[in-house]
Amino acid sequence: MFHFDVIKKDLTTGARLGRMTTSHGVVQTPAFMPVGTQGTVKSMLPEEIKNCGAEIILSNTYHLYLRPGHEIIKKLGGLHKFMNWPHPILTDSGGFQVYSLGTLREIMPDGVLFRSHIDGSKHFLTPQKAVAIQEALGTDIMMCLDECTPYPATASQTEKSLNLTAIWADLCKKAKTNDEQALFGIIQGGSYLDLRRQSLEKTLPLGFDGYALGGVSVGEPKEIMYKITDAITPLLPEDKPRYLMGVGTPGDIVFGVSRGMDMFDCVIPTRCARHGLLFTNSENVVIKNARWREDDHPIDETCDCYTCRNYSRAYLRHLYFAGEILAMVLNTIHNVRYYMRLMENIRTAISENRFEKFQNDFQNK
Amino acid sequence: MFHFDVIKKDLTTGARLGRMTTSHGVVQTPAFMPVGTQGTVKSMLPEEIKNCGAEIILSNTYHLYLRPGHEIIKKLGGLHKFMNWPHPILTDSGGFQVYSLGTLREIMPDGVLFRSHIDGSKHFLTPQKAVAIQEALGTDIMMCLDECTPYPATASQTEKSLNLTAIWADLCKKAKTNDEQALFGIIQGGSYLDLRRQSLEKTLPLGFDGYALGGVSVGEPKEIMYKITDAITPLLPEDKPRYLMGVGTPGDIVFGVSRGMDMFDCVIPTRCARHGLLFTNSENVVIKNARWREDDHPIDETCDCYTCRNYSRAYLRHLYFAGEILAMVLNTIHNVRYYMRLMENIRTAISENRFEKFQNDFQNK
Repeated sequence: MFHFDVIKKDLTTGARLGRMTTSHGVVQTPAFMPVGTQGTVKSMLPEEIKNCGAEIILSNTYHLYLRPGHEIIKKLGGLHKFMNWPHPILTDSGGFQVYSLGTLREIMPDGVLFRSHIDGSKHFLTPQKAVAIQEALGTDIMMCLDECTPYPATASQTEKSLNLTAIWADLCKKAKTNDEQALFGIIQGGSYLDLRRQSLEKTLPLGFDGYALGGVSVGEPKEIMYKITDAITPLLPEDKPRYLMGVGTPGDIVFGVSRGMDMFDCVIPTRCARHGLLFTNSENVVIKNARWREDDHPIDETCDCYTCRNYSRAYLRHLYFAGEILAMVLNTIHNVRYYMRLMENIRTAISENRFEKFQNDFQNK
Repeated sequence: MFHFDVIKKDLTTGARLGRMTTSHGVVQTPAFMPVGTQGTVKSMLPEEIKNCGAEIILSNTYHLYLRPGHEIIKKLGGLHKFMNWPHPILTDSGGFQVYSLGTLREIMPDGVLFRSHIDGSKHFLTPQKAVAIQEALGTDIMMCLDECTPYPATASQTEKSLNLTAIWADLCKKAKTNDEQALFGIIQGGSYLDLRRQSLEKTLPLGFDGYALGGVSVGEPKEIMYKITDAITPLLPEDKPRYLMGVGTPGDIVFGVSRGMDMFDCVIPTRCARHGLLFTNSENVVIKNARWREDDHPIDETCDCYTCRNYSRAYLRHLYFAGEILAMVLNTIHNVRYYMRLMENIRTAISENRFEKFQNDFQNK
């Protein structure tokens, strides 16, 4: 079961308000998905994730396949039950993680051969297997196995790569065995606009529940990500959700929304939190900074998160230097709530016909 | 403000039910105090500590004095506000931590000279300063600075040590400047019963709000701790709370209660949790054990904690091996709740005149 409705289109930008209905509930778009790589959004209880306003999270097929194994998760009732998150989950295909392994992996016509980063064991991931694993996990949105084209890559490498991704997309679609789980296709084509269009032409006719722009946020200059998103998003079907993979900073998300993107994911809020970088609506807070030593204010006076309601910067700084687990817990709650408030503010701005002003104010703040 | 009432005395053992009223609320005794060394019970939110049933926690003067500093905590409104725990807090005096430093410290008649384990800086802790620090922290129960006699120690070393502790106790009492905070004396005397009695005779006349048995759980054979607790507890004033410092395992706590002890603290529940050792009413669970790989049961079917209500052993095992912070969070919640249920069961057994049977059943389970 999967359904997407565009509720409202912005008059002056490409931004849109949507509603995505999945087997585990409704997601308002534009939506940001906190990353729960190993079946947990690092340091957060599921209730805390939900309380921050998240309606969907992302989990990583590659990691769960290797540990604890998708068959175990299936036996225990699927990923939602396993991790006590009864709300929507999107899983990536494992392609990006395998790609990130570098020399530990070899891409072949039928799939990708790789060695586990945990124990060095050999695995062969095919499009069919990527779908089978995600079906075993029982997640709401599955992603097709793709070859994530590195940056930089020549046009001929990129073309070869996007063709393989399109062939795999077809195989993924054919491998899918149920209607409870949605399947999204991925557009590749690197930094070449014509190759992005070529990927689009090969992928759209296959007919997916949603479309993602892949191979962005892979080390390319930000201008390239902007250029590709700007040019390709309008070519994606209007009636399907559009997902800008691995993006990004708050500014990148606002940009993506302005071009018509509906979904985002990134480790930035959670990873930065663990390193003590805290987002605010004005200047970001580096919690280890000596200036917070005796500061009795919350991270952000305007924030309504649990951390800001109860703790001072001085306490958070103390926990950070003491190496306390609670530092990561409290910082993560704040950053995830910051991202969720950003998405709420984006959606409100669209619904009130003032997204363009919101975007301008955001860029100039 | 401090008040202690013995509500009920067990008919066949030394166990007693009590009610300790402090400036930040009431504590039912026998009570266990989870340890929040650096102003946080490791990996727990204050609400989680409270939800587990804890009414009082312990925090360490030595650690907070060195980092972030008691003056900063005072400036920020005291330890309760700093750490968002509006309930009772007991602080130790720093004596035990300094003692644990080994070669980094030198005990002198007026106090103890030590080097910080953080930056090597030199500090001189006196009885007066120990009280001043705890007054700055604003905790509900302060402990006198004592010399924690090591094990083993000769009778003459031990006697010298207990005399110093008694002199310091007098100085602590005289240094105290308010009635909001209670001050407990500490009985030393090592493994020598006559020296324990000597310490008692020197300490009781000074008149404290409560009395602790110190210098136990310092590496001595368990039989010695049992022998001392057995002999000394009945000599402590009946109308004051009695605190068995640093104890201990569930079995040790049940023993201490049976001899008339009212308060306990120990890092066992929290530290074991972080290492994946989980307490249950039958066999304890070593979460990394391969037998839990596909186990869909909670840690303990009879446990009502958040972790047992929502997660399988298989999931907890996965989190543990994946090195996830959530493993520590969930395991700690369980173990602290286990200890709190133990105390609840102890109190109920006393109130229902069946503590002796409870103790026998507990020892034979």
